[in-house]
Amino acid sequence: MVQVGIVMGSNSDWEVMRHAAEQLKAFGIVFECRVVSAHRTPDLMFEYAETAAARGLKAIIAGAGGAAHLPGMLAAKTVVPVLGVPVPSKYLRGEDSLLSIVQMPKGVPVATFAIGEAGAANAALFAAAMLAGGTPAVAAALADFRERQRQNALAMTLPEV
Amino acid sequence: MVQVGIVMGSNSDWEVMRHAAEQLKAFGIVFECRVVSAHRTPDLMFEYAETAAARGLKAIIAGAGGAAHLPGMLAAKTVVPVLGVPVPSKYLRGEDSLLSIVQMPKGVPVATFAIGEAGAANAALFAAAMLAGGTPAVAAALADFRERQRQNALAMTLPEV
Amino acid sequence: MVQVGIVMGSNSDWEVMRHAAEQLKAFGIVFECRVVSAHRTPDLMFEYAETAAARGLKAIIAGAGGAAHLPGMLAAKTVVPVLGVPVPSKYLRGEDSLLSIVQMPKGVPVATFAIGEAGAANAALFAAAMLAGGTPAVAAALADFRERQRQNALAMTLPEV
Amino acid sequence: MVQVGIVMGSNSDWEVMRHAAEQLKAFGIVFECRVVSAHRTPDLMFEYAETAAARGLKAIIAGAGGAAHLPGMLAAKTVVPVLGVPVPSKYLRGEDSLLSIVQMPKGVPVATFAIGEAGAANAALFAAAMLAGGTPAVAAALADFRERQRQNALAMTLPEV
Amino acid sequence: MVQVGIVMGSNSDWEVMRHAAEQLKAFGIVFECRVVSAHRTPDLMFEYAETAAARGLKAIIAGAGGAAHLPGMLAAKTVVPVLGVPVPSKYLRGEDSLLSIVQMPKGVPVATFAIGEAGAANAALFAAAMLAGGTPAVAAALADFRERQRQNALAMTLPEV
Amino acid sequence: MVQVGIVMGSNSDWEVMRHAAEQLKAFGIVFECRVVSAHRTPDLMFEYAETAAARGLKAIIAGAGGAAHLPGMLAAKTVVPVLGVPVPSKYLRGEDSLLSIVQMPKGVPVATFAIGEAGAANAALFAAAMLAGGTPAVAAALADFRERQRQNALAMTLPEV
Amino acid sequence: MVQVGIVMGSNSDWEVMRHAAEQLKAFGIVFECRVVSAHRTPDLMFEYAETAAARGLKAIIAGAGGAAHLPGMLAAKTVVPVLGVPVPSKYLRGEDSLLSIVQMPKGVPVATFAIGEAGAANAALFAAAMLAGGTPAVAAALADFRERQRQNALAMTLPEV
Amino acid sequence: MVQVGIVMGSNSDWEVMRHAAEQLKAFGIVFECRVVSAHRTPDLMFEYAETAAARGLKAIIAGAGGAAHLPGMLAAKTVVPVLGVPVPSKYLRGEDSLLSIVQMPKGVPVATFAIGEAGAANAALFAAAMLAGGTPAVAAALADFRERQRQNALAMTLPEV
Repeated sequence: MVQVGIVMGSNSDWEVMRHAAEQLKAFGIVFECRVVSAHRTPDLMFEYAETAAARGLKAIIAGAGGAAHLPGMLAAKTVVPVLGVPVPSKYLRGEDSLLSIVQMPKGVPVATFAIGEAGAANAALFAAAMLAGGTPAVAAALADFRERQRQNALAMTLPEV
Repeated sequence: MVQVGIVMGSNSDWEVMRHAAEQLKAFGIVFECRVVSAHRTPDLMFEYAETAAARGLKAIIAGAGGAAHLPGMLAAKTVVPVLGVPVPSKYLRGEDSLLSIVQMPKGVPVATFAIGEAGAANAALFAAAMLAGGTPAVAAALADFRERQRQNALAMTLPEV
Repeated sequence: MVQVGIVMGSNSDWEVMRHAAEQLKAFGIVFECRVVSAHRTPDLMFEYAETAAARGLKAIIAGAGGAAHLPGMLAAKTVVPVLGVPVPSKYLRGEDSLLSIVQMPKGVPVATFAIGEAGAANAALFAAAMLAGGTPAVAAALADFRERQRQNALAMTLPEV
Repeated sequence: MVQVGIVMGSNSDWEVMRHAAEQLKAFGIVFECRVVSAHRTPDLMFEYAETAAARGLKAIIAGAGGAAHLPGMLAAKTVVPVLGVPVPSKYLRGEDSLLSIVQMPKGVPVATFAIGEAGAANAALFAAAMLAGGTPAVAAALADFRERQRQNALAMTLPEV
Repeated sequence: MVQVGIVMGSNSDWEVMRHAAEQLKAFGIVFECRVVSAHRTPDLMFEYAETAAARGLKAIIAGAGGAAHLPGMLAAKTVVPVLGVPVPSKYLRGEDSLLSIVQMPKGVPVATFAIGEAGAANAALFAAAMLAGGTPAVAAALADFRERQRQNALAMTLPEV
Repeated sequence: MVQVGIVMGSNSDWEVMRHAAEQLKAFGIVFECRVVSAHRTPDLMFEYAETAAARGLKAIIAGAGGAAHLPGMLAAKTVVPVLGVPVPSKYLRGEDSLLSIVQMPKGVPVATFAIGEAGAANAALFAAAMLAGGTPAVAAALADFRERQRQNALAMTLPEV
Repeated sequence: MVQVGIVMGSNSDWEVMRHAAEQLKAFGIVFECRVVSAHRTPDLMFEYAETAAARGLKAIIAGAGGAAHLPGMLAAKTVVPVLGVPVPSKYLRGEDSLLSIVQMPKGVPVATFAIGEAGAANAALFAAAMLAGGTPAVAAALADFRERQRQNALAMTLPEV
Repeated sequence: MVQVGIVMGSNSDWEVMRHAAEQLKAFGIVFECRVVSAHRTPDLMFEYAETAAARGLKAIIAGAGGAAHLPGMLAAKTVVPVLGVPVPSKYLRGEDSLLSIVQMPKGVPVATFAIGEAGAANAALFAAAMLAGGTPAVAAALADFRERQRQNALAMTLPEV
């Protein structure tokens, strides 16, 4: 059963959002990827949010750029945790996306991550951490990821000056 | 029949948005004021947008602060022109509200006005200008407003130094 | 008769502003495109604004960058609705253009749209929505545009991970 | 057993962070509140993070202002989900806090919420949503919260103009 | 004969702009103060600019806030040097005013000074420096001002710790 | 005799500052170009400022980037009008340069122009306007420049859509 | 002998800069406080910097606001380490001060600290750390400061919810 | 014995941080370069800081980007002076890095330098200035550097116009 939904407003967001998908796949978490646009397919967005809990989703990772309404509107329609990823915008480089996602009013939270690829990957890692409590395999994969990341950093060398 | 709808996410936005209402009233334009919250009453928001055209609304003035999704989501659900007013936010003074409203993606426009009271009043003036073509009384009132505004500026005096 | 005027301060703004023109053309709206510079041809700008209503213009779409005075000054000289498009500037990427256009004082509104191509296209869509009330063909074209946009989004697919 | 830890760098952050505590209390979630400073008590911070999982914490809500290192450093030392709340800073009003918390590098996520009180309350709501899956009482309380919030918004009235 | 014109969009700008007037008066420079609004009295603004050279003005000090078009539009209509003063705006504290004034396109310069009172006073000092070449009394007054300013700084004391 | 000095902190600023030089040359104004660095040659900078008036300079155009101290420090050492040009910086694109130049304290003005090439050219045009009063040839050249600029704008055409 | 010089452009900076003085005093470091203005007393500033090394100064703490040139210009005239403190400005709250101080060009460093009181105190702590190597009493005082700071944080309690 | 440690979170920071290494090498200062990540190797980071004083380090130059926690966390664990270099981030170009490093709370200072290469080189120059007091060779090298820098600037020529 799908545990995490990854949604984005356009397939042009894929280059950023695939970092979430690839991380979930590496952890063996079952996920789906969908284009769901707050502004072009608002009814689909509401339906997606309304059925998320019943479909068993444990988290929704939503990427959006500019006036990035997708994460916040999903969160308004479901209590399934929504993880927002600010996609860089053409002229303001994601500053608009970040503020539009993170500055949610009291009452409807969106967990927001960094602008761009790092944020997409981190949203997936956060989703994994949420699932780790009930899924030992994910917990193990996450611990392993952290350890390998640590080893990679320790193994980094710098050129001679 | 109501021609313009003024909506806002909370009655705490009223101190800003009343400038829109007062301006419409001064012009004799029939309007309504409603609390419609994108995040707390999303279904009402969709219903409001979906019925706007049939109810005869010629424009919707929507005020919102922070991750200000209300104007953009209304615009996603209706072709009735949506005029967005960035309400000042507590810490970022409306910079977040402005970007969340104005940076709409290609395909779903929101006409955005200045942050705060000036923007609210100007949204009403813009709505009046839209209605002026088909309503001579509004055209006359708008012309009169401009003329009085001009006279008031011309009459301003400055203290002696 | 021309219904919408598209003006910009220089032909270097064309790459952005042509998105407005193309959208209007697709809707069958009669429009004109002019270079009108607030700073280099101020008298032409005033004349353009002063004659706009008499020439039957229902909206003016004005694109400008940097200290983008064109939309606001047109609005100061006509009650024909002015739609402002912030053209990206070389170093500040349109943040200056956006603030110079949107932060109009109480009394003289400019309806502002997103920075760049999206804003230009959306200004045209907004103009179409304004005209739709009195022009069934435009209303139909706009409805069709929205529906096709929705279908395109629904049809988008994402790569396998 | 404590399920959620609320930590902050100083008791001067309490006026903001108490909104998280009050929300958790209203939901009947067992939590603790601690002053843990990244810069003044770094060893305590590491110890707090290292023991979080074993102590059964399901989430850590960390508030910090300025060069807000607390959420990110906790996240570096535990896989327990860390929810970051940007506390407003004296001169930059939390813009520095927000960027310091949200812009985490790929590999170590911090779920970030809005600047100030809204963000603190929303972090608690998000923690509740995370716990809701395994705790029906929390799920019920969260659903009830959402419904009451909706009712409150629907009941809001606006003054006559 | 009036040598310097001080103009501003509203008498609410006076608290800032009076620092220019007071400085000019202290130097014995003949000046005038006028409310000239780009947006509310555009024709007066053009007339003011068009007649400035013939009236013998050597400089125009123009204060404006928000979408501050007054300095740039005066400069578009006269070759008399225009000195722009960004008046602080309610929500953006003059960041919008500054960008709207300083980011003029190639071909039409506005000499821009600091936001607020310091900028107003400095515009007057700059005007004095421009006039000093042809007016020995102003040159002497300016030199004296600088010297007294230096002495005042040298005489400043600090409390004991 | 040299009337205008153009100074910059490094020859890497030349690509921007040459727009000032070319404009002055086109007007037949006698000028000099020098590398004068506030931070690397502070004594030369002071000497340059101290001798400026005696050497007959009527204006100094100073370009600087980043912590752009050159214009302000020249202004601190001479009453010859200083025109500051913010040179774009590598990472902050001139936002730092602009604020470092324009935000001078009360008492020591720097006339600031737009970031980059436009600002450099406009500083030269402003210097020309300052000189025009006493130099009919410059006044004529400036009037001619304005007229040709107007004609060029009027002659601009836009592509067919 | 004076080891650290604290300088600032005006006695109005004292409320911020006294935090540096008080910290140095608490550590028993001999210091002096002077008003030295980059723009109003540039010659004094150069003299102060030129004589700093010979006078035995080990560090100069310089506070400045707005176009904050003082730290950078001192650094241009001495190799004694300069510690810069951005003093909050009236309208931009120290964002301008920070950029003007920190964005020094390659070749002339200024060690920059936080905006306002925290930055002033931290500059003093940093100066103490620089002196600690050669002055055991300062090393001991600094260690003691850190330990008491740690104890104070550990002793902080939070109210009941 | 190593006198200065250069650390950075990833070898991808090397292109910026090598400017610090090259400058130290040119001065004959013994230094080491290490990858030490606040988020991926937090324990190594603490160990590095804890042993820095005993190993004889006189300064630590730490480069970091985004939520740049490395400099501040090192400073929290050692009284050895920490010099922070904001490494440009992909989307926000180092604005986030700068604020995360410079806005340290009262009690734990980080001396911050400019964003990018200039900041890295300047951190090394500042470290040299710190060491110069006790190391005549470094003092001589630094004086020589300054003099050559001055000569280079004086020797710069500009093209003919």
